[in-house]
Amino acid sequence: MIQEAILHLPYGAYAYALSSHEARVMLRAKRGDLKKVHLVHADRYRLEDDLEMLEVGYSGSDDLYDYFQTTIHSKTRRVAYRFLLDDGVRRLWYGEKGFAEHGDAAGYFQLAYLATGDLFEIPDWVDEAIVYQIFPDRFCNGNEKNDPDGVRPWGEKPKWDTFFGGDLEGIIEKLPYLQELGVNLIYMTPIFKSPSTHKYDTSDYLTIDPMFGDLATLKRLVSEAHKRGMRVMLDAVFNHCGSQFPYFQDVVEKGEKSRYKDWFHLHSFPVDTEKVNYETFATKVASMPKLRTENPEVREYLLHVAEYWIQEVGIDGWRLDVSNEIDHAFWREFRRVVRKANSQALIIGEVWHDSTPWLLGDQWDGVMNYLFRDAVVEFFAKRTLDAERFDNRLTNTRMRYKEQANRAMFNLLGSHDTHRFLTLCEERVERMRLAVMFQMTYVGIPEVYYGDEVGMLGENDPDCRRCMIWEEAKQNRELFDLHRKLIALRKKHKALQTGTYRTVRADALYNVYGYVRENAEESVYVVLNNGLITAEVTLPAGVTGVDLLTGETYAGTFSLPSMEGVVLLLNGGTV
Amino acid sequence: MIQEAILHLPYGAYAYALSSHEARVMLRAKRGDLKKVHLVHADRYRLEDDLEMLEVGYSGSDDLYDYFQTTIHSKTRRVAYRFLLDDGVRRLWYGEKGFAEHGDAAGYFQLAYLATGDLFEIPDWVDEAIVYQIFPDRFCNGNEKNDPDGVRPWGEKPKWDTFFGGDLEGIIEKLPYLQELGVNLIYMTPIFKSPSTHKYDTSDYLTIDPMFGDLATLKRLVSEAHKRGMRVMLDAVFNHCGSQFPYFQDVVEKGEKSRYKDWFHLHSFPVDTEKVNYETFATKVASMPKLRTENPEVREYLLHVAEYWIQEVGIDGWRLDVSNEIDHAFWREFRRVVRKANSQALIIGEVWHDSTPWLLGDQWDGVMNYLFRDAVVEFFAKRTLDAERFDNRLTNTRMRYKEQANRAMFNLLGSHDTHRFLTLCEERVERMRLAVMFQMTYVGIPEVYYGDEVGMLGENDPDCRRCMIWEEAKQNRELFDLHRKLIALRKKHKALQTGTYRTVRADALYNVYGYVRENAEESVYVVLNNGLITAEVTLPAGVTGVDLLTGETYAGTFSLPSMEGVVLLLNGGTV
Repeated sequence: MIQEAILHLPYGAYAYALSSHEARVMLRAKRGDLKKVHLVHADRYRLEDDLEMLEVGYSGSDDLYDYFQTTIHSKTRRVAYRFLLDDGVRRLWYGEKGFAEHGDAAGYFQLAYLATGDLFEIPDWVDEAIVYQIFPDRFCNGNEKNDPDGVRPWGEKPKWDTFFGGDLEGIIEKLPYLQELGVNLIYMTPIFKSPSTHKYDTSDYLTIDPMFGDLATLKRLVSEAHKRGMRVMLDAVFNHCGSQFPYFQDVVEKGEKSRYKDWFHLHSFPVDTEKVNYETFATKVASMPKLRTENPEVREYLLHVAEYWIQEVGIDGWRLDVSNEIDHAFWREFRRVVRKANSQALIIGEVWHDSTPWLLGDQWDGVMNYLFRDAVVEFFAKRTLDAERFDNRLTNTRMRYKEQANRAMFNLLGSHDTHRFLTLCEERVERMRLAVMFQMTYVGIPEVYYGDEVGMLGENDPDCRRCMIWEEAKQNRELFDLHRKLIALRKKHKALQTGTYRTVRADALYNVYGYVRENAEESVYVVLNNGLITAEVTLPAGVTGVDLLTGETYAGTFSLPSMEGVVLLLNGGTV
Repeated sequence: MIQEAILHLPYGAYAYALSSHEARVMLRAKRGDLKKVHLVHADRYRLEDDLEMLEVGYSGSDDLYDYFQTTIHSKTRRVAYRFLLDDGVRRLWYGEKGFAEHGDAAGYFQLAYLATGDLFEIPDWVDEAIVYQIFPDRFCNGNEKNDPDGVRPWGEKPKWDTFFGGDLEGIIEKLPYLQELGVNLIYMTPIFKSPSTHKYDTSDYLTIDPMFGDLATLKRLVSEAHKRGMRVMLDAVFNHCGSQFPYFQDVVEKGEKSRYKDWFHLHSFPVDTEKVNYETFATKVASMPKLRTENPEVREYLLHVAEYWIQEVGIDGWRLDVSNEIDHAFWREFRRVVRKANSQALIIGEVWHDSTPWLLGDQWDGVMNYLFRDAVVEFFAKRTLDAERFDNRLTNTRMRYKEQANRAMFNLLGSHDTHRFLTLCEERVERMRLAVMFQMTYVGIPEVYYGDEVGMLGENDPDCRRCMIWEEAKQNRELFDLHRKLIALRKKHKALQTGTYRTVRADALYNVYGYVRENAEESVYVVLNNGLITAEVTLPAGVTGVDLLTGETYAGTFSLPSMEGVVLLLNGGTV
């Protein structure tokens, strides 16, 4: 037994409450090292009574580790527990005091009390959500009267500073399109007043940019969306404002005498937007001064903004820009304010890296899942990962987070900050088809970046922000139909939303990836042949599968051609 | 290289801010596996520029792992970093993406932004503190007029429910004694109104129990203590109240109609103190109903209590009873309220196990360090650990926490909830002598449990709560003098307070434990011979050491008899 490779922590994603009487516990060990893991637990004040035993089931592997998980049910909400590890040769107890041949010498890990005040609660509707990300200037121009000067013709190649006239009325106009596609959550990049086309440099957090509409238009959008069973999220750019933000202008004008000087991180006076003697987003981006969120005034102001748009317009959540550069203390208050205003509001951060410290239950629900995207891009689009390593990467990402966070992830193939996925596929639609089949059947909220569903192309920003293609003749309608079908399947089959995820096949040789999503009612077996040759897939005797995409029934052994996939609803057992 | 055993996390005690521009980073590896660890870091938006390289120094070992630490200085406060690991044969990069032969393939760990809003700030005075724990009923009876009925003669063997008449005036009377001893922080177990002798079953959080005194007496105690350069901490029993607490009585009387029914965790009505149909401290302790701290009314009430005693009396901190069974959300608010009332207030939790989730900087400063005590008891008192394993246990405990928390730990040898240390030593004072030498020169705040300094004995509660021995003839004055001298040394030598801790010798064969505390100005080398035979200690050529306890000077090789120790201020170099 490789003791040094065994890890359990009595906190974080390794031990946490699922409810007031249930705790999820996880342990990791060197891949292949342990054959069986058990756990004993009791009330922490009554270690001699009511001791219960559980098997800690294998739940996946990454490059280096196997992960084991179980759920403890505690009547008293105070849990002491330790593991019995079995590598097939030797059994060792493992507890807070380390490894030992006798249980008591290992001690007990402690979940002192499953306090509901710390419960990680995500909105009830998260599991059903499919999100559609819109860059408003580029989606649809529903009202030419509000176009800014110098609008360029729809479909022209965008530059950094091009305006195309897209607006909120355009989005309202296209709600039937979104409804046909099946998405039910709209996330718009920023819509507040700002001089830029992307609007990540806010001038006024309480006003809709006139080129997009006004308060009434947004209210109409939200109410029309709600009527259609869709929700709407806005983008909170709280790390920095725009340099036109009046309080920053005040500081530029009045220097040290400005009453807003503590709203920013100023290095010296006078404030100089040429030399950029203040902290900004990234490095010396003069137009984006960083806000000092530790200042109670700033905090109060931004929290008011967060609350205002929920109370005034009824939005269903916030996506948080550059949110890992703001203090955790701010986000904890943010969660309290937002959830008080709307207990069902979703909170999604932007982090491109490990997001653990923000996803413990006290700050955000999920993040733009770029670790997911990295793996999907490498496996399906660039084909630099094989199926085994792909599975390892997915597992590694999933095991970083609590179950609640995994369910609330925005699983994106691309965004306004990346290459378009089909471009990364070298425009080979069959690669994207498999990726979408995967995305729509994986754990977490599928996120469609506007236009991806009709095969739009684009290099990195600004090229990935081209105008939406509305001419059906120029759309890839097959890809659209695939999205539509898969979204419908995900909405219909609870197993695809919340079913256990279990890898069945992660085949480096054939590059075939197969996994099951299952609950007590149904098992869905997805098999994706991302390899270059036809592979054989075998269902156990007595088990049949109906491909939910084609209606075709499979049994026994069948061939799955290169770059094809099936989504099989199993009958008569599981794989 | 045993990759599976290598751990770094870009959060918690593995990566955290020491200030707005400094971050501590730690890595652990299988013991003996790595020869050298380096780190490269840069601004996370400018990975190509200003890349800096640091050696990550070895900082200790436990049974299984070596730990390496360094401090990153960042101009821009946004840090990306990765490690280069060298096991003497092979070098591998290690970053967020795992291990790789090429740096870029390993990716970068990220400390996105060193936000001051998340800084772990402990009181400025922590490093100088030496705490003295008092159980008020048993320390000194300064006023017989406030004695409760049935007080027993001072010095009689205590039972659970014995009253001896100790009070706040008694403590005031003994301030000169405490000053002579040298302690400068008094922590009293609860003093608020309650029917019991221990007063962990509060009836009224806003009134001093009349048998101890009143508001004026406490004010006098605090002001007299402050005059003598001592601080005073109280015990916050917020997990549960006493069954005489009026709001609980209201629930007992009025059942479901009580407006306080949501203050408790009630299982059914009527509330029955015989059947105990409600959550309590531990298991069915009828007299201690658990408070529902998730209820905003309860929170507000308890936070008012926390604030009141700071504002009204000027106390210097709170010790928090059973504090791991209250939600983190409560403690975060508690910290805000307490620090707003007194920015220099110390917050110490009670946890007998790993305390990581509470010691990240947003809740408490430190805990009653029972993991420290366990190791000290096993090494010095029970002699079931050898010096090597003792060092491993200390390192393991220290590496769990951020530096700030380690500095704020209450390093106790015993408390009102344990056997007395000298009793665990089988009354062999020479064992306790070494333990006290260790305690007073280790990282964190030494905590003296009243009477331990004069050799008091006692089995576990209630026997460990005997009346303080005031007759000098019955006191162990040598032990008192040792405490007095060591406390004076600790106060005089900054290196003993905040100097780096470095193990020099952890010798399983001789059972000799030696370590250095050092800073830029001075090195103090402590060597404790906890073995049964005389050991030789060698100072490097040119280095001499003056024993701060005896004044004797050592050089070259000298003999250290069994159960003797030295505290050497080094001259001419270090060991």
